[in-house]
Amino acid sequence: MSQYSIAVLAGDGIGPEIMQEADKVLSAVAERFGITLNRKAFPVGGYAIDNHGEALPATTLVGCEQADAILFGSIGGPKWDTLPLEQRPERAALLTLRSHFDLFSNLRPARIYPGLESLSPLREDIAKSGVDVLVVRELTSGIYFGQPKGREGQGDEEFAFDTMRYSRREIQRIAVAAFEAAQKRKGKVTSVDKANVLMTSRLWREVTEAVANDYPDVSLEHIYIDNATMQVMKNPAQFDVLLCSNLFGDIISDECAMMTGSMGLLPSASMNEDGFGLFEPAGGSAPDIAGQGIANPIAQILSAAMMLRYSLNQTAPADAIEQAVIATLEAGVVTAELLPASEQHRAASTSEVGDEVVRQL
Amino acid sequence: MSQYSIAVLAGDGIGPEIMQEADKVLSAVAERFGITLNRKAFPVGGYAIDNHGEALPATTLVGCEQADAILFGSIGGPKWDTLPLEQRPERAALLTLRSHFDLFSNLRPARIYPGLESLSPLREDIAKSGVDVLVVRELTSGIYFGQPKGREGQGDEEFAFDTMRYSRREIQRIAVAAFEAAQKRKGKVTSVDKANVLMTSRLWREVTEAVANDYPDVSLEHIYIDNATMQVMKNPAQFDVLLCSNLFGDIISDECAMMTGSMGLLPSASMNEDGFGLFEPAGGSAPDIAGQGIANPIAQILSAAMMLRYSLNQTAPADAIEQAVIATLEAGVVTAELLPASEQHRAASTSEVGDEVVRQL
Ligand SMILES: CC(C)[C@H](C(=O)O)[C@@H](O)C(=O)O
Ligand SMILES: CC(C)[C@H](C(=O)O)[C@@H](O)C(=O)O
Repeated sequence: MSQYSIAVLAGDGIGPEIMQEADKVLSAVAERFGITLNRKAFPVGGYAIDNHGEALPATTLVGCEQADAILFGSIGGPKWDTLPLEQRPERAALLTLRSHFDLFSNLRPARIYPGLESLSPLREDIAKSGVDVLVVRELTSGIYFGQPKGREGQGDEEFAFDTMRYSRREIQRIAVAAFEAAQKRKGKVTSVDKANVLMTSRLWREVTEAVANDYPDVSLEHIYIDNATMQVMKNPAQFDVLLCSNLFGDIISDECAMMTGSMGLLPSASMNEDGFGLFEPAGGSAPDIAGQGIANPIAQILSAAMMLRYSLNQTAPADAIEQAVIATLEAGVVTAELLPASEQHRAASTSEVGDEVVRQL
Repeated sequence: MSQYSIAVLAGDGIGPEIMQEADKVLSAVAERFGITLNRKAFPVGGYAIDNHGEALPATTLVGCEQADAILFGSIGGPKWDTLPLEQRPERAALLTLRSHFDLFSNLRPARIYPGLESLSPLREDIAKSGVDVLVVRELTSGIYFGQPKGREGQGDEEFAFDTMRYSRREIQRIAVAAFEAAQKRKGKVTSVDKANVLMTSRLWREVTEAVANDYPDVSLEHIYIDNATMQVMKNPAQFDVLLCSNLFGDIISDECAMMTGSMGLLPSASMNEDGFGLFEPAGGSAPDIAGQGIANPIAQILSAAMMLRYSLNQTAPADAIEQAVIATLEAGVVTAELLPASEQHRAASTSEVGDEVVRQL
C-alpha cells in the first residue's frame, strides 16, 4: 500500500480553518483509494513567532525535510508587519522554504468557472470568453534573491539596491516546466519579459527560444510585462500558459487571480526538480475574516489535489478531489463571497463546504 | 507677447498623423490667446534610423535643448525590433531623452469619461464608479538605468543582471511631485512598492513617509505592486494619485490606461526640476493602423495641452483645449475605436476629430 508523509503548515489567519477542511478531504480520499497519507502539523509564520520565537522554527524545517510534500496554509498579518524585513513571516518562512527546497517552479492556475462569471471584475463578454490561464512563475531567483542587495551612503545620497539576476540554467528549467505544462493544455506559451529594457529579459528571451525548439508542438510568443497586464484585462482568453520571472510572475499571477473574481478557489504549487513541493492557496491569510467560519476552503482543498498529482503522483485521488469540488460548486454549496447580495442567506460555512466535497467524493 | 519654441518629434507609426492634428489645435489656441508657439520638427525613432542612421540624431537632441518643451509622437515598430537593444528606437531615443533631460517626473492620468464606460474592459458597475487616477511614475532611475547591468559567464552558468537602485534624493523629488499633484486633486497618495521583498522599496517607503509629513492635507497609503494590479481591476475608484518607481509605474500606468478602454484619449507628461518636459500620448505607435487616417488624435492633442500647462505655464490655453476635447467627445465626433460595432458608420477620421476640436475652441 502506498504511504506518504505530509508536513502540514497551517499558519495564520484563515490558514488553520481552511486546512481543517483539506484534512477532512485527504482522509476521505485516502480511505477511498487505499493510500496512507500521514500528516504531521508544524508551526509556521506569525503563530510560530508568537509561540517559538521565529517564523520558521528548526523543527518545522526538519519536519518538512522528512516529508514527501508540504501542505501550506497562509501566513502573515498586521500583527507582524512591523518586524524587520528578515524576521517577517513572508520572508523568514515562505521565501526561506522556497529557497531551501529549491522550489523554482511555481504553478498558479486561474480560471473563470462557468456559472461564476458574474464574480469577475471584467466585463461580462470578457468574463464569458473562456478564461483558463496557467501562470508558470520562476520562484527561487530573480530580484527576490539576487545579490548584492542592500543600502549604502549617507544623507540625501544614501541609496538602496536590489539585483535582478538570472542564469541560463535557471531560465531553462522554468521554461521547460512551462512547455511541459503547455503540452498537456492548449499548446501555447506566452513568455512575459521587459526585453526592451532589461538584460535579464534579453537572456530570458534567448533561452526560452532555444527551449521552444525542443517542443515543436507548442507555440511561443513574447510579451512585455506592461502590455501583459493590459492584455490580461482586455482579452485573457488569448492566453494558455504565461511563463514569467519571479517578480513579473508575482504581479501577473495576482492580476490573473483577481480577474477570476474568486481568489478563494485558486490553488498553487511550488516544486523542485525532484517533484518535492509546497502547495498553498493563492489568496492570503485574510486576518479580517479569520475565525468566523466563513472562509472558502476550496483553494486549500485544490492545493491538496495538486499535491497528490504533482508530488505524490497520485492522479486518481487528485482527479477525484477536483471533480468533487466542481460538483460542490454546481450544487451551489459555496461560501458567502461567491454569492450575490440577494442570496447571502444560503451561504455555506467553511466546514459545510468541506463536508460537501467529502460527500461528493 | 509670450513666445515659446517647441521641438516636435512625430516619430513612427501613427505619430505623424496624430501630430498633424495637435499642430492644428496649437495654431488655433496660439491665435486665440495671442501667444507665439514656434514649432520645429525633428526626426526621431525608426524614421530617424532609416534616414539618418540613428534613432536620436545629434541635430534632434540639440533642437530639443534649444526648445522650451518637446512634443513627442510615438516611436518603434516591428521593422526595428531586431536591432541590438541599445540601438532600438525605444532605448536609443526615448530612454536617452528621459535621462539626458533628467525627466524624472512622469504624469499619466487615466480616467473613464462619462458616457464612455462601455469601452472599459471592466464590469459596468466598476467602470461607472467614477474612475480618475493619476499615475506619478519615477522615470530616470530604478532598474531602467541602475548599474551594473550586463552579462557574464559561460555555458549554462552564463547569467545576466540588472540593478534596481534608488537614492533618497531621487525618491524624495518624485514623492514631492505626487503630493503636490494630490493637493490639487482628491488629496490621496497611494505609494506602490514591494517592501516585503525589495530593499529599494523599504527606502522608498521611508522617504515617502518623511515627505508626507510636509503635506498634512494629503493622506498616504502603501500598497504592494501585486496587490495594486488587483485593486486597479477590482476597485479603481479608490485611487487618486498612484506613486510608483520606474518599473512599477510602467506596469501600473499601462494597466490603468487599459482599464479606461480608451487609450487613444490618454496623454502623458515627463518633466524635470526646471519644468522642461516631453509630452506624449500614452499609447504606442500602432503600426497596424498607421497611414489609414483612423488613429485617434485626442491623446496627442491632450499632450499638447499638458505641455502648455506644465512646461509653458499657459493655463488658459491648456484649459481651453481640454474643454474643446470634452465638447468634441460629447458631440460624438470620435474615431472608430470609441464606437460600438453598430455605430461604426458614423466614425470620424483622424483629421475630422482634429477639425472638430479646433471648431470647439
Ligand atoms: C508574500 C510575498 C513575499 C509573496 C511573493 O511576492 O512571492 C507573495 O506575494 C506570493 O506571491 O506568494
Ligand atoms: C518603450 C518602453 C521602454 C517604455 C518604458 O518601459 O518606459 C514604455 O513602455 C513607456 O511606458 O513609456
